[in-house]
Amino acid sequence: MTSIKDVAREAGVSVTTVSRVLNNRGYIGSGTRRAVESAMRKLDYQPNGIARALQKSQSFFLGMIVPDSSHPFFGDLLKAVEREATHSGYKLLVCNSLDNPGMEEQYIGMLRQNRVDGIVMCSHTPDAGSYARARLPIVSFDRVIAPGVPSVGSDNYRGGELATEHLIAKGRRRLLHLSGPLGLELLSNRRRDAFAAVCRAHGDSVTGEVIEADHNGLGYEYFRQFMQERLPLQELRRYDGVFCSNDIAAYALCVHAAGLGIAVPKELAIVGYDGHSFTQMLQTPRLTTIRQPIGAIGGLLARTVIGLIEKEEIPARSATVDVELIQGDTT
Amino acid sequence: MTSIKDVAREAGVSVTTVSRVLNNRGYIGSGTRRAVESAMRKLDYQPNGIARALQKSQSFFLGMIVPDSSHPFFGDLLKAVEREATHSGYKLLVCNSLDNPGMEEQYIGMLRQNRVDGIVMCSHTPDAGSYARARLPIVSFDRVIAPGVPSVGSDNYRGGELATEHLIAKGRRRLLHLSGPLGLELLSNRRRDAFAAVCRAHGDSVTGEVIEADHNGLGYEYFRQFMQERLPLQELRRYDGVFCSNDIAAYALCVHAAGLGIAVPKELAIVGYDGHSFTQMLQTPRLTTIRQPIGAIGGLLARTVIGLIEKEEIPARSATVDVELIQGDTT
Repeated sequence: MTSIKDVAREAGVSVTTVSRVLNNRGYIGSGTRRAVESAMRKLDYQPNGIARALQKSQSFFLGMIVPDSSHPFFGDLLKAVEREATHSGYKLLVCNSLDNPGMEEQYIGMLRQNRVDGIVMCSHTPDAGSYARARLPIVSFDRVIAPGVPSVGSDNYRGGELATEHLIAKGRRRLLHLSGPLGLELLSNRRRDAFAAVCRAHGDSVTGEVIEADHNGLGYEYFRQFMQERLPLQELRRYDGVFCSNDIAAYALCVHAAGLGIAVPKELAIVGYDGHSFTQMLQTPRLTTIRQPIGAIGGLLARTVIGLIEKEEIPARSATVDVELIQGDTT
Repeated sequence: MTSIKDVAREAGVSVTTVSRVLNNRGYIGSGTRRAVESAMRKLDYQPNGIARALQKSQSFFLGMIVPDSSHPFFGDLLKAVEREATHSGYKLLVCNSLDNPGMEEQYIGMLRQNRVDGIVMCSHTPDAGSYARARLPIVSFDRVIAPGVPSVGSDNYRGGELATEHLIAKGRRRLLHLSGPLGLELLSNRRRDAFAAVCRAHGDSVTGEVIEADHNGLGYEYFRQFMQERLPLQELRRYDGVFCSNDIAAYALCVHAAGLGIAVPKELAIVGYDGHSFTQMLQTPRLTTIRQPIGAIGGLLARTVIGLIEKEEIPARSATVDVELIQGDTT
């Protein structure tokens, strides 16, 4: 059986260099990489990653649990986490939990059995206990799971302020916020806190009400139906500005308002939150939104969990990433 | 160290039953599952999946290489493959190749090193040789890689016929087809063949031209720019019906036409292809499109590669899945 030493000799480089090529870590010049790869091909060398994982008790696998990888937010986030993981020599196992607690528990068991080195958790199920019990390096997205478990998210409070102040600056006084589920410890609920604080700061001149939906990762059909049930014409007429806690809800509201003959933004201004690939493609209308830098969040999630695994300096726990207001056609 | 036998004894079931719970295979009643899980917790049993993979020389890992998991088509497909893989006890490693041949080669090497049991290949790079050389069970999406490598795709020819006949039925006579790259052995090019055949069948009364774009998995910005460069006003005025080989291109064309003051569908009818989650959300306008059943395609991709791995009856090679025309507002 060909060994890594044979490959190093054939390529005329050190074993460390071959190992770096194999693990895709550190800087390797393209000429060196080609020489090593050509030596591996010539000798038909096949490093056994699984045997190595067992020896080292490190698998270089990460698990990522998302509600739904086909949702544009989680699709974008998955891509960013995978890119950063690959860059650092880790492989990503993807798990679509559909927010089903039983499935999440099974996934966590599967990930532990396969000796993943860490988990990126983007779940919204009520009970996060199974994550805390997993006794693995974990980073969570936009959520506090347990003391000592770092989380990464956008600056939700600042995003809520920006959205609400923008509506008021556009002359809106009868405001509505469509929030996610307020019962869970989701950091995205800081958007609601900021909405309420900004409305209060304007005294009697501005009213701010809140309607609570299920979580922000749900799809168009959910929000379309939600709007029809909770915001019929006479209800919607009570407001002149709405801050939706996600862009799919904001778009569903645009479509719903058009169906009721309410002009956006003239009679109803709408601000969303996310700025993901769906929002970036959507031109009819271009949504005014609070853009989260999803690429940066994904990179930070990956670097945080890898930092925990490798016990290196880890990025600040509960890291918060800046957001910005994108002016579209809906305000 | 607690063994699987200890767990079976504690739970009062057979070792096979414990193994089924662990591997999430076969039917297990919820009471039995709970008993086994409770025994595992009580004894703190942690099966070592990696050690098992090394023993069995089967890892129950599948690799899936996509150009971009944040593209709505591949996001939907990834979710469907992952769901079916999990259902059959396999875990999915996701790889975003960004259609970079060097990255694909590295991913294939990584997947082989980690002893994946098989690969689901959804790449569009010119050289598919590195897949053929991987000597692993492989299934490809919408592409012929090598003789003996099964592929799964929608009925592209029928889709092309449906789209073209629909435009003609709507009274359109000066047709354009925006195709993917015709130089690659992509099954999606059958859409172009059908477009040309239907136009020919109508003799001199219908003209059909083709413009070739890069592949169908590209994003909105690419197609927006493509339209601006290749279809300025005087060019676009030459046509009264366009069949775009993907929905993102079709939407970009809607936006482009509106910008040029061309009324859709009155002056220009537009049909897309895909019917993925973006198209399903889009209401302004609702695109007329050929819907591929992405869930069924993903399920079939997973079952085909698992069939190859387990040497069971595999679904017919080069399986073709039915498509349907969805009438929207753009024709």
